[in-house]
Amino acid sequence: MQLHPNDSIAVIFCAQRCGSDDQAYQAAATAMGDLAAQQPGYLGEDHARSADGFGITVSYWQDDASAKAWRDHPDHTLIRERGRDKWYSAYSLHVTRVERGYDWQK
Amino acid sequence: MQLHPNDSIAVIFCAQRCGSDDQAYQAAATAMGDLAAQQPGYLGEDHARSADGFGITVSYWQDDASAKAWRDHPDHTLIRERGRDKWYSAYSLHVTRVERGYDWQK
Repeated sequence: MQLHPNDSIAVIFCAQRCGSDDQAYQAAATAMGDLAAQQPGYLGEDHARSADGFGITVSYWQDDASAKAWRDHPDHTLIRERGRDKWYSAYSLHVTRVERGYDWQK
Repeated sequence: MQLHPNDSIAVIFCAQRCGSDDQAYQAAATAMGDLAAQQPGYLGEDHARSADGFGITVSYWQDDASAKAWRDHPDHTLIRERGRDKWYSAYSLHVTRVERGYDWQK
Protein backbone atom coordinates (compact mmCIF):
# COMPACT_ATOMS: atom_id res chain seq x y z
CA MET A 1 0.00 0.00 0.00
CA GLN A 2 1.59 3.17 -1.22
CA LEU A 3 0.62 6.72 -2.18
CA HIS A 4 0.83 7.43 -5.91
CA PRO A 5 1.16 10.84 -7.56
CA ASN A 6 -1.67 12.91 -9.01
CA ASP A 7 -2.22 12.25 -12.71
CA SER A 8 -0.98 8.64 -12.50
CA ILE A 9 -3.26 5.86 -13.76
CA ALA A 10 -5.04 3.41 -11.44
CA VAL A 11 -6.51 0.31 -13.11
CA ILE A 12 -9.23 -1.18 -10.90
CA PHE A 13 -9.89 -4.85 -11.65
CA CYS A 14 -12.78 -6.51 -9.74
CA ALA A 15 -13.31 -10.21 -10.37
CA GLN A 16 -15.31 -13.14 -9.07
CA ARG A 17 -13.31 -16.36 -9.00
CA CYS A 18 -15.03 -19.62 -9.97
CA GLY A 19 -13.07 -21.43 -7.26
CA SER A 20 -11.76 -24.06 -9.64
CA ASP A 21 -8.18 -24.70 -10.74
CA ASP A 22 -6.73 -22.86 -7.76
CA GLN A 23 -3.11 -23.97 -8.01
CA ALA A 24 -2.73 -22.93 -11.66
CA TYR A 25 -4.52 -19.66 -10.91
CA GLN A 26 -2.19 -18.81 -8.03
CA ALA A 27 0.90 -19.59 -10.12
CA ALA A 28 -0.37 -17.44 -13.00
CA ALA A 29 -1.34 -14.58 -10.67
CA THR A 30 2.14 -14.55 -9.12
CA ALA A 31 3.84 -14.73 -12.54
CA MET A 32 1.67 -11.88 -13.89
CA GLY A 33 2.36 -9.73 -10.82
CA ASP A 34 6.10 -10.26 -11.25
CA LEU A 35 5.93 -9.52 -14.98
CA ALA A 36 3.81 -6.39 -14.46
CA ALA A 37 6.36 -5.09 -11.96
CA GLN A 38 9.07 -5.25 -14.65
CA GLN A 39 7.14 -3.12 -17.16
CA PRO A 40 8.08 0.51 -17.85
CA GLY A 41 5.88 2.93 -15.94
CA TYR A 42 4.74 0.40 -13.31
CA LEU A 43 4.26 2.09 -9.93
CA GLY A 44 2.77 -0.63 -7.73
CA GLU A 45 -0.20 -2.84 -6.97
CA ASP A 46 -2.72 -3.49 -4.20
CA HIS A 47 -4.72 -6.68 -3.95
CA ALA A 48 -7.37 -8.15 -1.66
CA ARG A 49 -9.54 -11.23 -2.06
CA SER A 50 -12.41 -12.22 0.21
CA ALA A 51 -13.16 -15.76 1.30
CA ASP A 52 -16.05 -15.96 -1.22
CA GLY A 53 -13.60 -15.46 -4.10
CA PHE A 54 -14.40 -11.82 -4.86
CA GLY A 55 -11.15 -9.94 -5.44
CA ILE A 56 -9.96 -6.42 -6.24
CA THR A 57 -6.57 -5.67 -7.78
CA VAL A 58 -5.53 -2.07 -8.35
CA SER A 59 -2.39 -1.53 -10.43
CA TYR A 60 -0.86 1.93 -10.66
CA TRP A 61 0.94 3.28 -13.73
CA GLN A 62 2.93 6.39 -14.49
CA ASP A 63 0.78 7.25 -17.49
CA ASP A 64 -1.89 5.87 -19.81
CA ALA A 65 0.68 4.70 -22.38
CA SER A 66 2.31 2.34 -19.86
CA ALA A 67 -1.08 1.01 -18.69
CA LYS A 68 -2.05 0.33 -22.32
CA ALA A 69 1.30 -1.30 -23.08
CA TRP A 70 0.71 -3.73 -20.19
CA ARG A 71 -2.83 -4.43 -21.43
CA ASP A 72 -1.36 -5.28 -24.85
CA HIS A 73 1.58 -7.36 -23.55
CA PRO A 74 1.33 -10.78 -25.29
CA ASP A 75 1.71 -12.83 -22.06
CA HIS A 76 -0.93 -10.70 -20.36
CA THR A 77 -3.31 -11.08 -23.31
CA LEU A 78 -2.86 -14.84 -23.26
CA ILE A 79 -3.50 -15.14 -19.52
CA ARG A 80 -6.61 -12.95 -19.82
CA GLU A 81 -8.09 -15.49 -22.21
CA ARG A 82 -7.36 -18.28 -19.77
CA GLY A 83 -8.96 -16.21 -17.00
CA ARG A 84 -12.20 -15.95 -18.95
CA ASP A 85 -12.04 -19.61 -19.85
CA LYS A 86 -11.18 -21.12 -16.45
CA TRP A 87 -10.85 -18.78 -13.49
CA TYR A 88 -13.46 -16.04 -13.47
CA SER A 89 -17.24 -15.98 -13.67
CA ALA A 90 -17.38 -12.17 -14.06
CA TYR A 91 -15.18 -9.09 -13.88
CA SER A 92 -15.19 -5.35 -14.28
CA LEU A 93 -12.26 -3.11 -15.11
CA HIS A 94 -12.08 0.67 -14.74
CA VAL A 95 -9.10 2.68 -15.98
CA THR A 96 -8.94 5.83 -13.86
CA ARG A 97 -6.73 8.86 -13.35
CA VAL A 98 -5.63 9.89 -9.85
CA GLU A 99 -6.85 13.38 -8.93
CA ARG A 100 -5.69 13.44 -5.31
CA GLY A 101 -4.52 11.05 -2.62
CA TYR A 102 -3.78 10.74 1.07
CA ASP A 103 -2.21 8.15 3.30
CA TRP A 104 -1.92 7.56 7.00
CA GLN A 105 0.03 5.26 9.26
CA LYS A 106 -0.31 4.67 12.98
CA MET B 1 -19.64 -5.40 -9.26
CA GLN B 2 -20.96 -3.01 -11.85
CA LEU B 3 -19.70 -0.92 -14.75
CA HIS B 4 -19.68 2.83 -14.08
CA PRO B 5 -19.71 5.61 -16.67
CA ASN B 6 -16.71 7.51 -17.95
CA ASP B 7 -16.02 10.69 -15.97
CA SER B 8 -17.51 9.28 -12.75
CA ILE B 9 -15.37 9.31 -9.58
CA ALA B 10 -13.85 6.14 -8.07
CA VAL B 11 -12.52 6.49 -4.52
CA ILE B 12 -10.00 3.71 -3.82
CA PHE B 13 -9.55 3.06 -0.09
CA CYS B 14 -6.88 0.49 0.89
CA ALA B 15 -6.56 -0.29 4.59
CA GLN B 16 -4.83 -2.67 6.94
CA ARG B 17 -7.04 -3.74 9.84
CA CYS B 18 -5.49 -4.13 13.29
CA GLY B 19 -7.67 -7.17 13.94
CA SER B 20 -9.07 -5.81 17.18
CA ASP B 21 -12.63 -4.77 18.00
CA ASP B 22 -14.09 -6.78 15.15
CA GLN B 23 -17.75 -6.72 16.11
CA ALA B 24 -17.89 -2.93 16.44
CA TYR B 25 -15.93 -2.56 13.21
CA GLN B 26 -18.35 -4.79 11.26
CA ALA B 27 -21.36 -2.92 12.61
CA ALA B 28 -19.82 0.44 11.70
CA ALA B 29 -18.78 -0.77 8.23
CA THR B 30 -22.31 -1.96 7.49
CA ALA B 31 -23.85 1.26 8.81
CA MET B 32 -21.45 3.40 6.75
CA GLY B 33 -22.13 1.34 3.61
CA ASP B 34 -25.87 1.82 4.08
CA LEU B 35 -25.49 5.54 4.75
CA ALA B 36 -23.19 6.04 1.74
CA ALA B 37 -25.77 4.34 -0.49
CA GLN B 38 -28.34 6.97 0.51
CA GLN B 39 -26.16 9.93 -0.49
CA PRO B 40 -26.84 11.95 -3.65
CA GLY B 41 -24.57 10.89 -6.49
CA TYR B 42 -23.71 7.46 -5.04
CA LEU B 43 -23.29 4.88 -7.82
CA GLY B 44 -22.08 1.75 -6.01
CA GLU B 45 -19.30 0.06 -4.08
CA ASP B 46 -16.95 -2.93 -4.38
CA HIS B 47 -15.18 -4.43 -1.41
CA ALA B 48 -12.74 -7.26 -0.74
CA ARG B 49 -10.77 -8.14 2.38
CA SER B 50 -8.05 -10.79 2.59
CA ALA B 51 -7.58 -13.12 5.54
CA ASP B 52 -4.60 -11.04 6.77
CA GLY B 53 -6.89 -8.01 7.24
CA PHE B 54 -5.82 -6.06 4.16
CA GLY B 55 -8.91 -4.64 2.45
CA ILE B 56 -9.83 -2.56 -0.57
CA THR B 57 -13.08 -0.63 -0.88
CA VAL B 58 -13.87 1.28 -4.08
CA SER B 59 -16.85 3.61 -3.96
CA TYR B 60 -18.15 5.17 -7.16
CA TRP B 61 -19.73 8.63 -7.39
CA GLN B 62 -21.46 10.58 -10.08
CA ASP B 63 -19.11 13.55 -9.70
CA ASP B 64 -16.46 15.03 -7.46
CA ALA B 65 -18.98 17.17 -5.57
CA SER B 66 -20.88 14.09 -4.36
CA ALA B 67 -17.64 12.30 -3.39
CA LYS B 68 -16.55 15.37 -1.39
CA ALA B 69 -19.97 15.71 0.24
CA TRP B 70 -19.66 12.12 1.49
CA ARG B 71 -16.13 12.80 2.74
CA ASP B 72 -17.50 15.76 4.72
CA HIS B 73 -20.64 14.01 6.05
CA PRO B 74 -20.53 14.39 9.88
CA ASP B 75 -21.19 10.67 10.58
CA HIS B 76 -18.49 9.67 8.12
CA THR B 77 -16.01 12.12 9.63
CA LEU B 78 -16.71 10.77 13.11
CA ILE B 79 -16.27 7.14 12.06
CA ARG B 80 -13.01 8.00 10.26
CA GLU B 81 -11.59 9.22 13.57
CA ARG B 82 -12.61 6.00 15.24
CA GLY B 83 -11.01 4.05 12.39
CA ARG B 84 -7.66 5.73 12.99
CA ASP B 85 -8.03 5.28 16.73
CA LYS B 86 -9.13 1.62 16.87
CA TRP B 87 -9.45 -0.29 13.60
CA TYR B 88 -6.66 0.52 11.14
CA SER B 89 -2.88 0.47 11.34
CA ALA B 90 -2.46 2.18 7.94
CA TYR B 91 -4.45 3.27 4.92
CA SER B 92 -4.19 4.98 1.57
CA LEU B 93 -6.93 6.75 -0.34
CA HIS B 94 -6.88 7.77 -4.01
CA VAL B 95 -9.65 9.85 -5.55
CA THR B 96 -9.69 9.01 -9.26
CA ARG B 97 -11.72 9.77 -12.37
CA VAL B 98 -12.91 6.96 -14.65
CA GLU B 99 -11.49 7.27 -18.17
CA ARG B 100 -12.83 3.99 -19.59
CA GLY B 101 -14.27 0.72 -18.38
CA TYR B 102 -15.20 -2.80 -19.47
CA ASP B 103 -17.02 -5.69 -17.94
CA TRP B 104 -17.53 -9.32 -18.75
CA GLN B 105 -19.72 -12.13 -17.50
CA LYS B 106 -19.63 -15.82 -18.26
